[in-house]
Amino acid sequence: MTTTRTPAYTELQQRQQRLHHLTHLQSIAEWDQSANMPAKGSEARSLAVAEMGGLLHQLSTEPVLKTLLADAEQEDLSSDERANLREIKRAWSASNALPQRLVEAKSLASSRCEHAWRSQRPANDWAGHLPNLREVVALAREEAVCLSEATGLSRYDALMDLYEPGMRSAEVDRVFGDLRSWLPDLIKTVQAKQAQETVLEPVGPFPKAAQRALGLDAMRLMGFDFDAGRLDESAHPFCGGVPEDVRMTTRYREDSFIPSLMGTIHETGHGRYEQNRPRDWITQPLSQARSMGLHESQSLSFEMQLGSHPAFAKLLSPLVIKHLGDQPAFAPQNLNRLLTRVHTGLIRVDADEVTYPAHVILRYEIERALMEGEIECEDIPALWDAKMMELLGQDTRGNFKDGCMQDVHWGSGSFGYFPCYTLGAMYAAQWFAAMRRAAPTLDAQIEAGQLQPVFDWLQTNIWSQGSRWETPELVRRASGEALNPAHFKAHLQARYLA
Amino acid sequence: MTTTRTPAYTELQQRQQRLHHLTHLQSIAEWDQSANMPAKGSEARSLAVAEMGGLLHQLSTEPVLKTLLADAEQEDLSSDERANLREIKRAWSASNALPQRLVEAKSLASSRCEHAWRSQRPANDWAGHLPNLREVVALAREEAVCLSEATGLSRYDALMDLYEPGMRSAEVDRVFGDLRSWLPDLIKTVQAKQAQETVLEPVGPFPKAAQRALGLDAMRLMGFDFDAGRLDESAHPFCGGVPEDVRMTTRYREDSFIPSLMGTIHETGHGRYEQNRPRDWITQPLSQARSMGLHESQSLSFEMQLGSHPAFAKLLSPLVIKHLGDQPAFAPQNLNRLLTRVHTGLIRVDADEVTYPAHVILRYEIERALMEGEIECEDIPALWDAKMMELLGQDTRGNFKDGCMQDVHWGSGSFGYFPCYTLGAMYAAQWFAAMRRAAPTLDAQIEAGQLQPVFDWLQTNIWSQGSRWETPELVRRASGEALNPAHFKAHLQARYLA
Repeated sequence: MTTTRTPAYTELQQRQQRLHHLTHLQSIAEWDQSANMPAKGSEARSLAVAEMGGLLHQLSTEPVLKTLLADAEQEDLSSDERANLREIKRAWSASNALPQRLVEAKSLASSRCEHAWRSQRPANDWAGHLPNLREVVALAREEAVCLSEATGLSRYDALMDLYEPGMRSAEVDRVFGDLRSWLPDLIKTVQAKQAQETVLEPVGPFPKAAQRALGLDAMRLMGFDFDAGRLDESAHPFCGGVPEDVRMTTRYREDSFIPSLMGTIHETGHGRYEQNRPRDWITQPLSQARSMGLHESQSLSFEMQLGSHPAFAKLLSPLVIKHLGDQPAFAPQNLNRLLTRVHTGLIRVDADEVTYPAHVILRYEIERALMEGEIECEDIPALWDAKMMELLGQDTRGNFKDGCMQDVHWGSGSFGYFPCYTLGAMYAAQWFAAMRRAAPTLDAQIEAGQLQPVFDWLQTNIWSQGSRWETPELVRRASGEALNPAHFKAHLQARYLA
Repeated sequence: MTTTRTPAYTELQQRQQRLHHLTHLQSIAEWDQSANMPAKGSEARSLAVAEMGGLLHQLSTEPVLKTLLADAEQEDLSSDERANLREIKRAWSASNALPQRLVEAKSLASSRCEHAWRSQRPANDWAGHLPNLREVVALAREEAVCLSEATGLSRYDALMDLYEPGMRSAEVDRVFGDLRSWLPDLIKTVQAKQAQETVLEPVGPFPKAAQRALGLDAMRLMGFDFDAGRLDESAHPFCGGVPEDVRMTTRYREDSFIPSLMGTIHETGHGRYEQNRPRDWITQPLSQARSMGLHESQSLSFEMQLGSHPAFAKLLSPLVIKHLGDQPAFAPQNLNRLLTRVHTGLIRVDADEVTYPAHVILRYEIERALMEGEIECEDIPALWDAKMMELLGQDTRGNFKDGCMQDVHWGSGSFGYFPCYTLGAMYAAQWFAAMRRAAPTLDAQIEAGQLQPVFDWLQTNIWSQGSRWETPELVRRASGEALNPAHFKAHLQARYLA
């Protein structure tokens, strides 16, 4: 970045830098809230975070920004600067599309809904949840209308654009439609095949301290930089913090070590993306991770593309034995079977790689119809029951807590996020297909414990690119083609039916 | 607090609330920096904290505040509101007395000086430290001039007023002069007495996890609310965080458990003061701890008034045995002897209750002369050597690292803070004298493990008062008299010569 820029762009850049610094404090406070904060700190923390949220919104919507953006468009900028300006403008449009009153009302309603949901879900209390959800949905629809007016997109697309910029439901329909056509049969075939296999169950308990040490070793194997991040515990695992200091969390169950181990490997994928964003642009939007789907493509590259690879189990096995002691279940082949078992269950977050997309398709179809005004909140349970039966053969009637009340997303006002999970899985499969074309010996290298070629490819094609390219261009540059669900299908067939 | 206030005061109150919320994020980030942050997070964190520092300064110096303060003075306020307004005005005066340029220059120079000091101190490199210190001193003197002009106080008094509002060097001279007259002899007498006593040394090592569990039990004994705070580790122990969520830290040495145990009890005194500040006023200056000396009076009430009490060792002994195993050194009488051993050493932070004031008097006399322009930086070592010999009989010639380079205060730009440590010790002795007058059975209660009367007295007289009263009034209300060094003398005589 040169310093001889003409005024408007330079001014915008400095303002972004200020936002970067203030957002740093917000991110650390939010991580702390999940990882450290005692109960009585909650109210003061919520007020502090809300105050900062208001301040950040105020700084993002100052009237002068409109002029600065228009002036900067006319300035002589490098291609990177122009990409940065494009991203500044995208964030500005989203912030300015929403009246402050709506932002506050939605924040309030979704806090209330989420808070009540924490006790309503275990009580299976759909009737209690419904009025709260209706209020959140009404405000999310208002948000969708504002964003739709600002962008010219459909209401649902305007919301999805916040998480996966450039992705449209026509495209999601195309790739999910393909998936939907072969996934239910694939699930049945895989389950029939696996029914013939013997799998040894690990014998616990697995003490937390040993699991933590195992997780740290797995993070080292995956190249996490511990001078620029940490691993802690929280009720719901996530990857937070700031790119210069990534704060990953996990949770431990003493009866089973696999959820924490694979969860940690998953978050490490997110973490390395953040740790390796373009350093020279770290305070600017150009450096930011491209999208939620791209982010998920990194966590799933680690957890699924590598994690469920039979050769990867040979790398993991000695670490498991080192920390949890030797037992027959920890032999590589058995470990790989444990990591690739397919079950048709009710709960998305517990789902395996093969059934997961079914959970996502179901939610996508419902939330899209809800935001486009084609259905109402009271229609959700019946649709849920029908789609669960169709896609996964599961009966969820009357079981709201393990059905449509299981996720926090809708109650907390997030609509348009769910597709990112499966888009991420598809992108990840596409990256590994591209890697294998470029380096046909890739699988032999993984088997030999050489993961660096994988990391190098991701570094070159994804991490170091930040938000320099819009997603379709990034995908094309990285893999030579547009998003292509055939790679995901080929991956599942090779991994689960070979 | 009623909500029907006239505009100016209400506006000021709302602005204070905003500062409270933003400061919350700053405090948590600063705690995290010491307790959690990995090395590569440092630069981004410093920039984020500096950005927020600038923002807080900007919010504290907005021109409209002058008018609001003047208008509020004319409004019909309750006595609490008037006290709150007095404290708002005091903070405003201090912020506005300093030009932004000076604040930034001093922050930069002291960061640089402190950073270099970290390697210069172990290298005993006074010559290297001197030019950096000169720069910091020059800027601190500028600061003192600005504050002196704004307050009408002498330069040193204007600096000390930032930490101990209302305290003047004439008063410090009075009480330290008294101390100085009997302390060196008292130290000799105590050492002669203790030379006759047998003290068993505890046999280590003491594993960190066991020491941590012991520290947590000690915090429970001292009434710390773990739903509103935590204990973590840092290189330099402190009590930070926010009143609603107090973050204490300690450090562990496996060869000795006493420094961490007593350090934890010390910080618990700070922590309970913060946890029990007036709740209805928590966002306002009226709720704030009165001063650094008052704060230290709480930590020393816990660490010294209770901690070195022979009866308290009977409460501590079973906890030590529970966590570190039984050994003869842990018997109550021996434990009390370990906790009250007097050594004339070179290092302030390692000093015991009896010799500590000598370290403070020495620093007070030097820093006062330095700020009043009576001496220069190059005069410090000779003065240090002379005063160490006079007060503690120690030869420090040529030993800068254990002499005038041992503390971070001056290099980091803090002048006027040191007296607070010993003022705190004197206040603590005065509180316990008042408690015993009100409840002659206090020592028997402590012996019986009933610490609640102590906590109740502190809660009623100190914690719940926040900054409602100026210090002399608070001291008079709590103890019926002005600061009186006789109580500290009586305490030391009773504790160490009885």
